[in-house]
Amino acid sequence: MSFRLLYQDKDSRARLGVLTTPHGEVNTPIFMPVGTQGTVKTLSGDELKTSGVEIILGNAYHLYLRPGLDIIRQAGGLHKFMGWDHPILTDSGGYQVFSLAKLRKLSENGAEFSSHIDGSKHLLTPEKVIDIQKILGSDIMMTFDECVHYPAARDYVEQSVELTTKWARRSKIYFDQQSEDSGRRQLLFGIVQGSTYLDLRKKAVEELLSIGFDGYAIGGVSVGEPQDLIYEIAQYTASLLPENKPRYLMGVGTPPDVLEAIADGCDMFDCVVPTRNGRNGQAFTSQGELQLRNAEFKGDFRPIEEGCDCFACRTHTRAYIRHLFNAEELLGLKLVSLHNVRFYVRLIELSREAIRGGRFNAFRKSIMANYNKRSG
Amino acid sequence: MSFRLLYQDKDSRARLGVLTTPHGEVNTPIFMPVGTQGTVKTLSGDELKTSGVEIILGNAYHLYLRPGLDIIRQAGGLHKFMGWDHPILTDSGGYQVFSLAKLRKLSENGAEFSSHIDGSKHLLTPEKVIDIQKILGSDIMMTFDECVHYPAARDYVEQSVELTTKWARRSKIYFDQQSEDSGRRQLLFGIVQGSTYLDLRKKAVEELLSIGFDGYAIGGVSVGEPQDLIYEIAQYTASLLPENKPRYLMGVGTPPDVLEAIADGCDMFDCVVPTRNGRNGQAFTSQGELQLRNAEFKGDFRPIEEGCDCFACRTHTRAYIRHLFNAEELLGLKLVSLHNVRFYVRLIELSREAIRGGRFNAFRKSIMANYNKRSG
Repeated sequence: MSFRLLYQDKDSRARLGVLTTPHGEVNTPIFMPVGTQGTVKTLSGDELKTSGVEIILGNAYHLYLRPGLDIIRQAGGLHKFMGWDHPILTDSGGYQVFSLAKLRKLSENGAEFSSHIDGSKHLLTPEKVIDIQKILGSDIMMTFDECVHYPAARDYVEQSVELTTKWARRSKIYFDQQSEDSGRRQLLFGIVQGSTYLDLRKKAVEELLSIGFDGYAIGGVSVGEPQDLIYEIAQYTASLLPENKPRYLMGVGTPPDVLEAIADGCDMFDCVVPTRNGRNGQAFTSQGELQLRNAEFKGDFRPIEEGCDCFACRTHTRAYIRHLFNAEELLGLKLVSLHNVRFYVRLIELSREAIRGGRFNAFRKSIMANYNKRSG
Repeated sequence: MSFRLLYQDKDSRARLGVLTTPHGEVNTPIFMPVGTQGTVKTLSGDELKTSGVEIILGNAYHLYLRPGLDIIRQAGGLHKFMGWDHPILTDSGGYQVFSLAKLRKLSENGAEFSSHIDGSKHLLTPEKVIDIQKILGSDIMMTFDECVHYPAARDYVEQSVELTTKWARRSKIYFDQQSEDSGRRQLLFGIVQGSTYLDLRKKAVEELLSIGFDGYAIGGVSVGEPQDLIYEIAQYTASLLPENKPRYLMGVGTPPDVLEAIADGCDMFDCVVPTRNGRNGQAFTSQGELQLRNAEFKGDFRPIEEGCDCFACRTHTRAYIRHLFNAEELLGLKLVSLHNVRFYVRLIELSREAIRGGRFNAFRKSIMANYNKRSG
């Protein structure tokens, strides 16, 4: 078993676990910064490690198109290519094919599409997506799925879940054929789709469980639906998933979203928010979000967040970072991204401590009360 | 005396020295990375220190306009504002007023100009430029000068040198009035102008020497003239300057330029080349310059330079960095800038060793022979 459940909170569904991967153990709950193109934007591997990052996410779709699999194979896999020897989860490209690619054509076999970079034509099938992720050498692979946007008609979603389930079964069969009998086996996660239709989510879960995966992801959330629905889907779907497998809520979210999802029993999270917002000058703090471009920070010589141990906060002031953004200096983008990643990692670290101490609900309430102070 | 000459090469005019500043000692020869707007582009202070950088340059003109002196005064000076507690040299703004600013109007009193950022009107006088640099708190201040472009008519240059000399005298008088009797006294350097007219350079040197400065800069080179002329001006002017004061060749240059200037007896250099070219994907190596965007590096899994101890070379390959540039990832700009700065610092470190060992000419020849291999 790759996942060990260490502790189950009494007052919520929050839990502590350890996931063992070919590149080491990952403690859960865990937040995974997104390294779309083989780099977590603006940050180097040593900066991620210093920030306490245990695992990052890579995008199969992006890396398949650029630099391409030949280069990554020659490099000896994604870890070596990007100089990161800790765990990596790669998504299957499902989300990107349906959000980024052009002229996509869906069939039972797979998805044909044109590259968003150069228009070249490609076909992704469940089997090919396994092959891609084997070449990438990620620690955790995701099955190919159809990611449906919100809102979607029930009929469409019903058919789509059926297709995703078929693809999941083909993925598992192909994965089992390919998989070597080695201690460093890559893990394979299935993805629960079903849009906002809870009965379809339930059906999807049942079928995926009958196939059997190393972990289960809740996909197709954070695709345009109201926030309440994200919580409802996450809570309901997580409650259907087995205790002894990790649960990964894809593409979520803001700090309050992550705390809510931990309380609902989700274990793994990824989101571009800390780095994307960081590049826009938006910093996360325990008091809420700060837009450091704003004139109010012109003469503010405090760190982004008092007491934060990140390089940006130990070394620089809000006034300096505001100046960097104002003068279009790239160092500013790095500093806020670095702080935001550290903020997310610390939020997770504190959550684990609170779960361990049996006080997660109180912790979450106090964080939320503070967090909304500034925004409110 | 702030400068101690430690060693004079027998076979060239190259020399070793130590310059004592309020923020510590600087070994010469020295290369100063350029931190125009209070940041050496893409790099943080700890990355500069790890690269062996001893002193950086800041631009009075840029910092005066943005973030403005109020902010830097409130921060407690430029060192604290940017989080760098090692020496800083600030230029006087002369070069920027004459290259960047709009609608400039020159008079004996000073230079009126419009900001290149917002068009606001400003007047810089020699005295004001001292005031600015006192607020910045730089370790080495430069006098305000007129930087003449190439080519320039003799009549114009003659008058210009006269003006620059008058400004230098006013700067020194004002500096002496302002200067506190403290162990942490800022240093003041005069700037030799005179374009390509060697007799005017000589006249400028004589007048500046009669005023007396902590060091002497050779300005108005690398402003469009052929490379041979840079060497000729540097060599001739350096030969006129006293042995017991540091000689700073402004805005120079490529690695071969720097070695040539060291041989001519220059001690200090600054140039945007390592960081500007780095942001364009151009890496300096002992074999010459590599354009890492080029397709030839697509599958090249060697470091930028074998044996280089910088983070980029220890951790990443040319193929990965090429991918980062291709995918427009900001980490690429940082990695090549970091390598280039380390390359320049190492070139200087090796030059010092060679001077100390009495073999600088042989060292320079062997570096040059290798360097031109690739370009040629």
